[in-house]
Amino acid sequence: MNGAESLIRTLVAGGVEVCFANPGTSEMHFVAALDEVEGMRSVLGLFEGVVSGAADGYARMAGKPAATLLHLGPGFSNAMANIHNARKGHVGMINIVGDHATYHMECDAPLASDIEGMAATVSQWVRTSPGPEHIAADAAQAVQIAAHDQIATLILPADASWGESPSGAAAAMDLAAPPRVSTESIERAAAMLRSGEPALVLVGGCEIDVELGLMLGQIGAASGARVCVETFPTRISRGAGTARLDRLPYLAETAIETLRPVRNLLLIGAPAPVSFFAYPGLPSMLPADDCRVLALAQPGHDIHHCVQGLLMQVGGADAAAPVHSLELPGLPAGKLTAVSLAQAVAHLLPERSIIVDDGATTTPPLYAATAGAAPHDWLTLTGGSIGFGLPCAIGAAVAKPDRKVVCVAGDGSAMYTIQALWTMAREELDITVVVCNNRKYNILAAEFSRTGARGGKPGPRARSMLEIGCPDMDFAALASGMGVRASRADSAEAFNEQFAEAMVTRGPRLIDAMVPAHSVM
Amino acid sequence: MNGAESLIRTLVAGGVEVCFANPGTSEMHFVAALDEVEGMRSVLGLFEGVVSGAADGYARMAGKPAATLLHLGPGFSNAMANIHNARKGHVGMINIVGDHATYHMECDAPLASDIEGMAATVSQWVRTSPGPEHIAADAAQAVQIAAHDQIATLILPADASWGESPSGAAAAMDLAAPPRVSTESIERAAAMLRSGEPALVLVGGCEIDVELGLMLGQIGAASGARVCVETFPTRISRGAGTARLDRLPYLAETAIETLRPVRNLLLIGAPAPVSFFAYPGLPSMLPADDCRVLALAQPGHDIHHCVQGLLMQVGGADAAAPVHSLELPGLPAGKLTAVSLAQAVAHLLPERSIIVDDGATTTPPLYAATAGAAPHDWLTLTGGSIGFGLPCAIGAAVAKPDRKVVCVAGDGSAMYTIQALWTMAREELDITVVVCNNRKYNILAAEFSRTGARGGKPGPRARSMLEIGCPDMDFAALASGMGVRASRADSAEAFNEQFAEAMVTRGPRLIDAMVPAHSVM
Repeated sequence: MNGAESLIRTLVAGGVEVCFANPGTSEMHFVAALDEVEGMRSVLGLFEGVVSGAADGYARMAGKPAATLLHLGPGFSNAMANIHNARKGHVGMINIVGDHATYHMECDAPLASDIEGMAATVSQWVRTSPGPEHIAADAAQAVQIAAHDQIATLILPADASWGESPSGAAAAMDLAAPPRVSTESIERAAAMLRSGEPALVLVGGCEIDVELGLMLGQIGAASGARVCVETFPTRISRGAGTARLDRLPYLAETAIETLRPVRNLLLIGAPAPVSFFAYPGLPSMLPADDCRVLALAQPGHDIHHCVQGLLMQVGGADAAAPVHSLELPGLPAGKLTAVSLAQAVAHLLPERSIIVDDGATTTPPLYAATAGAAPHDWLTLTGGSIGFGLPCAIGAAVAKPDRKVVCVAGDGSAMYTIQALWTMAREELDITVVVCNNRKYNILAAEFSRTGARGGKPGPRARSMLEIGCPDMDFAALASGMGVRASRADSAEAFNEQFAEAMVTRGPRLIDAMVPAHSVM
Repeated sequence: MNGAESLIRTLVAGGVEVCFANPGTSEMHFVAALDEVEGMRSVLGLFEGVVSGAADGYARMAGKPAATLLHLGPGFSNAMANIHNARKGHVGMINIVGDHATYHMECDAPLASDIEGMAATVSQWVRTSPGPEHIAADAAQAVQIAAHDQIATLILPADASWGESPSGAAAAMDLAAPPRVSTESIERAAAMLRSGEPALVLVGGCEIDVELGLMLGQIGAASGARVCVETFPTRISRGAGTARLDRLPYLAETAIETLRPVRNLLLIGAPAPVSFFAYPGLPSMLPADDCRVLALAQPGHDIHHCVQGLLMQVGGADAAAPVHSLELPGLPAGKLTAVSLAQAVAHLLPERSIIVDDGATTTPPLYAATAGAAPHDWLTLTGGSIGFGLPCAIGAAVAKPDRKVVCVAGDGSAMYTIQALWTMAREELDITVVVCNNRKYNILAAEFSRTGARGGKPGPRARSMLEIGCPDMDFAALASGMGVRASRADSAEAFNEQFAEAMVTRGPRLIDAMVPAHSVM
């Protein structure tokens, strides 16, 4: 058995069943081994940002990591933006990066580069396997790291891949349970909530499923504390039957207003809230100066156990959490806007759908409109690097082939990783992509006005950096060029019809939704 | 004047006139300043790999660097693959990367990342400007680094950008001439060539223009040495009237054959030849064991001066360099193949065209067929990271708006940075893109056979990693989706007609050339 086979066997033994891949020459032995070892599904992406974004979406929905297969430093660097997003969302991932043979590295061949240096910027764990006999143990460790919601990058020199592996079989893996928060800490947090001063519980750094949401709702009801989820939760169950939980606003000004009355801020998995960007005259830290902040749990902790303990301590076991009932907006008519699009999606969304949100300024109305929609999961952009949505939808659909995936993306966002459409078509994934085509980097138009330059009105050169019409992109043509059925919607009625049809049909589908840019400030 | 204005003024004073950009919030003050300062053209890309590849192509053709404008770590990482290519080709570039305000960095906001760590892997020079008063001096140094064909990355915290710059005006720049090779070294090299033993001169690491090529041809004629250009020259003048120079073969086996008889290897700008990848049983270093290797000049040296000196020393001033006469292949008929496509391009290529080669297995016949075509420049993939071609063509066309740019790309290569088509349309660039659509990663099919796995025949899972049909990509649809006129050619006649029309029409154009994959081993 060679090193590449030893690697795949170890991954499969560790429960890693899917590899999103864009291989090259240095990974050919890994590719060859795919047919020698059972149990690994390999999904090709035409660009590495698709590969890493898909691994992110897969792990969020499967609850366990996928592997990526990347070609040397340039392949890894193409994947880095979506690895960054996964890291910020505490999503586990195992990156396998081929490198030159160990003895070839000193030659500085054209594709030689500092892969370890690159990997260190976005990974919690980086290792170069020095030879085939090390691969099983190294891969086992990578699986453990990723199982704890971290990024593991294993660099695989070509000779480690093609050489004979004497150990061969997978090394034993110890997938320890996540650490628990101490009872004392939970008691301290409960005392804080019981103090009577205005309190807010901010939750994040983990999947917020129905059960966790309901417990949080009970804690709020029993203690009087306001309960918020972080601005960009990795995965949150929403819709009818889920707890009514606020979401911390994105805009610093609005978040500061939310936090102004709060005297006790309890953090469960979420970091202390900071402004997404800095602005002259606005603070970076958003809680009020006189707010006490208690970090009860970190990402990676057993958050369910922690919240359950807190619920007991605040005596909320019998409290009634405020819950969303099924409340569907009517089907809209007339102009297609971010609001009418949101109404249509909320109205038509099938039960157990997965919404992937890479919509920047166009999706806040959708988040609001779907609060009482059919039960669904919502995945957000956790690291701020747009271009995550279409790839993430691939991974979600691979993890949950029986659930409809709806990816709502801005036109700007969609273009970073538009190659994802091809993988959707190849794998016949049940994804409906809605591109909100407003022909602007609309978020930047808003941010420009904050600079105060030229009275907030961009000059012609600046405007050409913010507007992405001219030429206008035709996403239906782009989709059909990659084998995805597509249509354009210019009115609410057209969108209703196209989206309704997409929801009752399996397979990849794109709707080019002509939505005017709206003011977001 | 704020820091952003100070930066742009300094760049313009240093001769940097073009900025390829994909900005975000942290770069908004730079964007605003574009309208306050005269002299900087800003060209938007919808993906950062387009931005950095365009800066590469611009510098190759303009003979001076462009700037890029990138959004924090994720924006930089998206640009890294094409920065890698530029670095390997010794092409200067100034990357301006916005970052959070200095005081905001400790907050670990979603977009915070280790930009310096990323930048260090692909840059010779990295600096974070600590405040607006440092920007002019830092930018001036970045210009100097890039003027010496290196990668300079200047990280610009938002508060350095928006803060008042007391220095304001551009700092003085000392753009020193490149260092010269000593007369003694040149004499030693000439003695080596005069020794009578079989010699080969390998040239690279610089632009090989007509004059340099002719001097090299004279050196070969006078000394009896064989003269080769490196496998992937950054820029080389070719066609009628240029010297007949060999190109070191890509395949290690073939290059080893070329080098086997050589006893004296003289390196001028080029590194000692190594195998592109390592293979079991093949050496990494390609010269024969008993070959003496003399490195006369490094990239960054004054190569013209060095070659001129060598020419004098070998007494070749009056030697006749073997020169290509105008020899056009006939227009092909029948099947469209890599060979017939090459014949048509060579036949129809206008004088002073620029060919950008990201064609992997499809362009070797084109290189051969254009040897006696109308005089043109040829730009190659210097760092092995495919997806360089379309962006590079943008930069070349911006640098030389009066010259036709022909970009020949593989289908796999084109998909990495397909967003480049949009910028071509927006800027109305005179580029004809020929996509050789063979529905395979054909180079990988060849590399797979070398692994020896399964008798060189990939199993079904491996095959699905090598073949990129299913679904078949329609590049004409992709182009029209981004505003570029396009057509498909299924026969030599159709290609002749479409390419001929493209050569006499200005503006962006794409031909989806249905070329079957051919064996390359």
